[in-house]
Amino acid sequence: MKCVKDIGERELIRRIWNQIRAELRFTAIPNTFDDAVAFESRYKYIVMTNDGINEKTDKLPGMSWHDFGWRLGVMCVSDLIAKGAIPLGMLISLNIPKSLEIKAVEMIYEGLIDSAKEYCFELWGGDMGEASEVTIDGFMVGYSTKKPIFRKGMKLGDYVLTTGKYGLTGAAFHYLLKGGIAVSENTMHNIIQAAYKPRVKLRMGVLLANTEGITASIDSSDGLAESLYQLAEINGLGILIHNIPIADEALEYANTNNLDVKELALYGGEEYEVVFSVRPEAIDEVLENMKKNNIEVHIIGKVIERKGVFIQKANKTIPIERRGWEHYSKDF
Amino acid sequence: MKCVKDIGERELIRRIWNQIRAELRFTAIPNTFDDAVAFESRYKYIVMTNDGINEKTDKLPGMSWHDFGWRLGVMCVSDLIAKGAIPLGMLISLNIPKSLEIKAVEMIYEGLIDSAKEYCFELWGGDMGEASEVTIDGFMVGYSTKKPIFRKGMKLGDYVLTTGKYGLTGAAFHYLLKGGIAVSENTMHNIIQAAYKPRVKLRMGVLLANTEGITASIDSSDGLAESLYQLAEINGLGILIHNIPIADEALEYANTNNLDVKELALYGGEEYEVVFSVRPEAIDEVLENMKKNNIEVHIIGKVIERKGVFIQKANKTIPIERRGWEHYSKDF
Repeated sequence: MKCVKDIGERELIRRIWNQIRAELRFTAIPNTFDDAVAFESRYKYIVMTNDGINEKTDKLPGMSWHDFGWRLGVMCVSDLIAKGAIPLGMLISLNIPKSLEIKAVEMIYEGLIDSAKEYCFELWGGDMGEASEVTIDGFMVGYSTKKPIFRKGMKLGDYVLTTGKYGLTGAAFHYLLKGGIAVSENTMHNIIQAAYKPRVKLRMGVLLANTEGITASIDSSDGLAESLYQLAEINGLGILIHNIPIADEALEYANTNNLDVKELALYGGEEYEVVFSVRPEAIDEVLENMKKNNIEVHIIGKVIERKGVFIQKANKTIPIERRGWEHYSKDF
Repeated sequence: MKCVKDIGERELIRRIWNQIRAELRFTAIPNTFDDAVAFESRYKYIVMTNDGINEKTDKLPGMSWHDFGWRLGVMCVSDLIAKGAIPLGMLISLNIPKSLEIKAVEMIYEGLIDSAKEYCFELWGGDMGEASEVTIDGFMVGYSTKKPIFRKGMKLGDYVLTTGKYGLTGAAFHYLLKGGIAVSENTMHNIIQAAYKPRVKLRMGVLLANTEGITASIDSSDGLAESLYQLAEINGLGILIHNIPIADEALEYANTNNLDVKELALYGGEEYEVVFSVRPEAIDEVLENMKKNNIEVHIIGKVIERKGVFIQKANKTIPIERRGWEHYSKDF
């Protein structure tokens, strides 16, 4: 198999461009082979985010390079959606060893292109560098016609909501990394695909900024517990949870493996749901608006004064342990 | 010395934010601790670029982490300037080993902050990941009020110009990497500083897009020869050079070390000058405009039909060898 050093940077860039151009439109200027890109701005707000993946820390056992590329696209789209923005396009920083097979690069871009088709963004090019292992950073630019929603803005008394259900990725990580017991084939398929090929709800990007009464928002990619902690911390408030929406497949897996499904749901991570807060007076309209747009959404708790994140159990308020997935932690 | 794994990601992010906030303004929304950033767009064109540096391939012997951070800022600013754009702000993807000293991260940000002060851009945050060696990708957004200039657009008969003089970084790389003979202290200082702490001409970002008759542009960061080749190639034309502006210090160093100074000038790289093409009928006005703005600029050649890059020697047209600095090449 040919590897990167056999063809060199220039030829590799040419191949990637050809691959992108065969599949995607490209409306920004210029249309290829430059180190920058521009667009004529007709948008009120420009929203930007970056996120990265690393072969060592993010490529699960059995995960393909295609999934790896797809994941990077989804990670960035998810960040923008949680701000109430719609993606426009993406620049890629591709840091790879020179011994990497060309085929791997092509598959990464296949996955990226698929995510670009699915979530309607353009691939604008990027930069290439050498690294000991595959480290790809994605920079995505999007827009919003209304003022974007950020992590800061949550108020005392707000409802806390989330899209979707939790636990699938937690189950997948347990199965893939700790050798758990498989359940039925269909269930395992849904569990594994949640980790290999996560999906986002693009429609939320339009809804969030355009729905009155939404005060703050974050995606749940760091895990539900950590995302709640981050929301609480940046707003100097607390969150009391009374309900964790659990995916059926996660429950089945947890029962078979004698695990607490709440653990899987709170600390899984790599889930790309939106966690957001809503003014109490706007809650009915927000719920109706989400339903009208076919977005599954659950009220999971309320914003309280006491700092931290807690769960209501019978009449007790129990702190939820903060142990998200943090880079560089001692026992990483 | 404390290292990254001793304090964890959250505390490291907090420290970086504090460092940035103490030194720089931040006008984008929100103002900290989010994974995305937005600005209300009042600009006609939004211009974006990304560039990256790696500890192994870009940190020269004797180069400080401060210089390393400074360099990343300059690399991105240079890309924008060459499009006729002015930087607004930057997102950083910081990929670092967990054994890295905190002090190194702080110094990298010191350098970045210094470049941000010097070239008037904001640091908007970013993303953090783990990697075997320090790999930092910068994503910079800028604006232009007129249509940006790209690599594509050069026409047959255009003049080819460059800002500044060449050869300093070539001399520095020779001295630092191949153990060349030092010349006088002052000269060596200028040579080494050109490599450790490169500078850009911010004013060019305004001039390029606002001066009539400029057809294409590229920065010379890949080396003068390679930059000319890229311009020629993307436009399906050739460039004939009759003049290479050489820095006095480079000439002195080359003479002492028995080197061909043209080699240093053509293949040095990591120089951040702007190479651009100008319609013949506009050349006088462009030269006058540059002079009025105190930008040193030289006519170095002309655009010809024959593909490639050539140099005029007496009455002969000799092809310039294409061997820029390319990642992943076999003998890298």
